[in-house]
Amino acid sequence: MGKSTLDLIKECDNFPYYDEDPAYYKAHLKTYHAFKVTGCDAILGYIPNDVVENIRFPKDCWDVDSTAQTVTLVTAPDATPAQRSELVAQTLADVVKRDTFKILRGWRNEMYAVYGPKGEFLLEMERSASPLFGIVTYGVHMTGYVEDEQGIRIWVPRRSKTKQTYPSMLDNTVAGGISTGEKPSECAIREAMEEASLPEDVVKKGATPVGCVTYFYVRDQRAGGETGLLQPEVEFLYDLKLDASIEPKPCDTEVEDFRLWNVDEIKQALSNGEFKPNCAMVLIDFFIRHGILTPENEPDYMKIMARLHRRLEFPTVSHFTA
Amino acid sequence: MGKSTLDLIKECDNFPYYDEDPAYYKAHLKTYHAFKVTGCDAILGYIPNDVVENIRFPKDCWDVDSTAQTVTLVTAPDATPAQRSELVAQTLADVVKRDTFKILRGWRNEMYAVYGPKGEFLLEMERSASPLFGIVTYGVHMTGYVEDEQGIRIWVPRRSKTKQTYPSMLDNTVAGGISTGEKPSECAIREAMEEASLPEDVVKKGATPVGCVTYFYVRDQRAGGETGLLQPEVEFLYDLKLDASIEPKPCDTEVEDFRLWNVDEIKQALSNGEFKPNCAMVLIDFFIRHGILTPENEPDYMKIMARLHRRLEFPTVSHFTA
Repeated sequence: MGKSTLDLIKECDNFPYYDEDPAYYKAHLKTYHAFKVTGCDAILGYIPNDVVENIRFPKDCWDVDSTAQTVTLVTAPDATPAQRSELVAQTLADVVKRDTFKILRGWRNEMYAVYGPKGEFLLEMERSASPLFGIVTYGVHMTGYVEDEQGIRIWVPRRSKTKQTYPSMLDNTVAGGISTGEKPSECAIREAMEEASLPEDVVKKGATPVGCVTYFYVRDQRAGGETGLLQPEVEFLYDLKLDASIEPKPCDTEVEDFRLWNVDEIKQALSNGEFKPNCAMVLIDFFIRHGILTPENEPDYMKIMARLHRRLEFPTVSHFTA
Repeated sequence: MGKSTLDLIKECDNFPYYDEDPAYYKAHLKTYHAFKVTGCDAILGYIPNDVVENIRFPKDCWDVDSTAQTVTLVTAPDATPAQRSELVAQTLADVVKRDTFKILRGWRNEMYAVYGPKGEFLLEMERSASPLFGIVTYGVHMTGYVEDEQGIRIWVPRRSKTKQTYPSMLDNTVAGGISTGEKPSECAIREAMEEASLPEDVVKKGATPVGCVTYFYVRDQRAGGETGLLQPEVEFLYDLKLDASIEPKPCDTEVEDFRLWNVDEIKQALSNGEFKPNCAMVLIDFFIRHGILTPENEPDYMKIMARLHRRLEFPTVSHFTA
């Protein structure tokens, strides 16, 4: 028995929902500390309690309250994002030195931004540390497709065997994380070249922003590093309509190859669990928007639609002001 | 100052959210009774307390529990949907006879189905009574558009001045409620002819199912009848790509006329509040899927995406098994 569409969604959007079981949800939240910064009411992420125990939080700039279950970055009220980021970086440097977390061995030298409820830029932190704090991360996923008399076919890359995360799994045509200061469209153009050798003019001509998926992912073994870390994510989606003459090609060592798959082949690979979980979400959204999955052929249509667009309990933005 | 996109969403999805203010939400829920049926755990709708007081619920088939704040249709465990529906109809007949509610003066002679959490058909009730019980209702909205060298233009009807609900407001090209036993695609075809004189072959050729919007609407004065009644709704969406030669035309007296509007004209009319609230939601979803509203030009993009796809607290289905 293969995986159903809803099974695939549940593998990616796998943090509990309050309204499905309020008691369970509340009990589950007790296994985390809320990550906050001085002067901002919002919870910015959830840190597993055992992670809190294993980070040395210097008392001069962190308030760890084990009753309220909060970890607050304490700064002067007029602190700048640069000052907050520097304090986080210092704390992480100590964690790296002591090699406390496997996940930080995959240090990326890429910075991810954290925003407050009014869209204000609060701080940035190293990408590989973001799941330790459970902050919202942002990415771009682009579905490169050809539509002709054969119907819709999609360019599917296979991840390299040697990739740290999800080795050998199938991916979306172009996908990548949005670094501090980058706009979604800039990220799309950068990643299209880096991952698929697709030049800027091809993206500008063929790409349409078509929405986003949001989900709350609890990392499993396939993600590498510690399991149980949280990744609430926003993926901005682009449909990239390509002429049959244009062929994405690997540019770096991250992608094994690209092949043009028809819809039935993709459905089979999804059902086999061959796609990276969040890439499955993106293809499901594509299938819904293109009339391939319909209210009449997909029994879990309503649950799927809601879970592709989870309302995250943290501030989320689409205007990156950093 | 015109209305922002988020303002328009808030006018339609205007029932409170638990996580925005749990205390307010809980207090607000106290102003309703939950509608249930024997043998089904799920809450099927919320009935305002003053509505409960003004309906005569015969004691032999209704259990009104003012402590638990529930109104339960009590039947034998093996009751059929027809039996449950008959009991509801009898109760409503008495309410109509006494002319208790203005909303029932707009009796439609159309039946709406109610489903349980496993997608099981529980009962049906008269359409105009559905807001009294706050049950989930289902509809189809189709956006008829032309895409050519002038860009995207959309066929916009204006509702008749004499329509009971939202007179003279702008509407979606084709929109209508799904009656018991109807599939979304059947409803789309039926309504396309009834409302826009578009024949079945045009719909079959040009229409693509592209998702749904879900929202929790609290009726205001424009809806007619009592205000404060609840309408959690699912609208299945179809994009209907039309040749420039095809022109929708009013078929009955419900529509004043159809005009082909460009995107800027529609944006202006949205901002002026000229569209029926749920039709604004549908156009916003269209604009997002077609790259007109983007993460970079719409500051409230994230809030909008989540609220177009609200996770309703009632069972919802897309396979209509009645």
